[in-house]
Amino acid sequence: MPTFKLTVAYDGGEFVGWQRQAAGVSVQGLLEDAFSELEGGPVVVFGAGRTDAGVHALGQVASATLTRAIDPQTLVRALNFHLPPAVRVLGAAAAPDGFHARFDACAKTYRFRLFNARVLSPFERPYVWHVPEPLNIQAMAEAARVLEGRHDFAAFQTAGAETATTERTIYSSRIDAVPEALVLYEVRGDGFLRHMVRSIVGTLVDIGRERHPPAWIHDVLDSKTRARAGRTAPPSGLFLVRVEYQAGDL
Amino acid sequence: MPTFKLTVAYDGGEFVGWQRQAAGVSVQGLLEDAFSELEGGPVVVFGAGRTDAGVHALGQVASATLTRAIDPQTLVRALNFHLPPAVRVLGAAAAPDGFHARFDACAKTYRFRLFNARVLSPFERPYVWHVPEPLNIQAMAEAARVLEGRHDFAAFQTAGAETATTERTIYSSRIDAVPEALVLYEVRGDGFLRHMVRSIVGTLVDIGRERHPPAWIHDVLDSKTRARAGRTAPPSGLFLVRVEYQAGDL
Repeated sequence: MPTFKLTVAYDGGEFVGWQRQAAGVSVQGLLEDAFSELEGGPVVVFGAGRTDAGVHALGQVASATLTRAIDPQTLVRALNFHLPPAVRVLGAAAAPDGFHARFDACAKTYRFRLFNARVLSPFERPYVWHVPEPLNIQAMAEAARVLEGRHDFAAFQTAGAETATTERTIYSSRIDAVPEALVLYEVRGDGFLRHMVRSIVGTLVDIGRERHPPAWIHDVLDSKTRARAGRTAPPSGLFLVRVEYQAGDL
Repeated sequence: MPTFKLTVAYDGGEFVGWQRQAAGVSVQGLLEDAFSELEGGPVVVFGAGRTDAGVHALGQVASATLTRAIDPQTLVRALNFHLPPAVRVLGAAAAPDGFHARFDACAKTYRFRLFNARVLSPFERPYVWHVPEPLNIQAMAEAARVLEGRHDFAAFQTAGAETATTERTIYSSRIDAVPEALVLYEVRGDGFLRHMVRSIVGTLVDIGRERHPPAWIHDVLDSKTRARAGRTAPPSGLFLVRVEYQAGDL
């Protein structure tokens, strides 16, 4: 019963999200259907991050167990043959027995792309949040750094979501302005609450617009109250970039 | 009768090309319709490059003459209001009387994007030509340089096209491999024949695949025969990057 670790990229604009739903096309559903074509029976695929509708992935990681051995390169080609071009398996590797893409993940990196110019480029439109007003990048960068470390992120969790604990460790939380009007927020942590990255971005953009000073993010964090944070940024700007595992898990 | 010079970006995947056609949506048609909304009557818009169906623009230049004065920044906002998001006016400026975007252009730069890896990124798909086989970049770069200078480019012209002369001056013709599997071909010249850039790229890719040595491009050029060159590369990879004018034309 070989288990595989897959690296997957997708344009989330076309899907209801990672997770299989009663209605609509999901990335998990497409991968499970592609595996079923090869296996001749149902296959369950686990994803490291259950990205929401419209969120993209450059390096999602998924795991699945098959009943028969298959060469990883052959598996990549066969899965891509059965998948639409908006979902691509970039690589596959044999994984240790019991490997689980979500439970074994020790760090994830997300990137959020802001387009900060009056006129939105037609090419960036599906992959950014367009913020036309000038942003104080320095203030955003200062506020972003405040989130590094272990904190209770309850203020940045979608109301109603249920998790055992709202504490998470953020290893890095950085703002970077790059040419051509892009502002990138990149965050790496041991785990993320529902809508956490998008709520952080909404909060950072409020600071960038100078509605609040950078230190306001301490108040938001300490409040543990969702209503204190900024709005939830739209999914189009969010990318799951990378998932990390212990060396033994490959 | 103020004349304006506009800089325009568009995602060509949605259009029948720059030029207004009997059927289908063209960029020229959309701009003329947007101008007519402001002017209350027909306006003719000239484009520097008559890009084909599916070809993109980062910096197309267009000219139009209105009957009334209008502030250029107001013009940009008003045109974008009437245009679909796949077409954006990036800027407008008052131009000298009689300025014509096409006849006054003294140089144009095109970029062609090749995606050279087995698995095509979902995000690059609409903006590249996917060439999965390994390419000899060095050979392509060497051949590309051969085209610099004044030459008769009849071999790289679509059969049946009619022009007064097939001689053009190419100021630079360069291949550049950049990270993430992209190979870029950038060419700047005083003018281009129909399908010339895409025929050059098809020829360079044949050289990259080592079907011919770099020096073969001399034979193709000297033959002045379209059938000797490589295939016409698909439009999705081609971008009109920049149009240049004499300083006096702004």
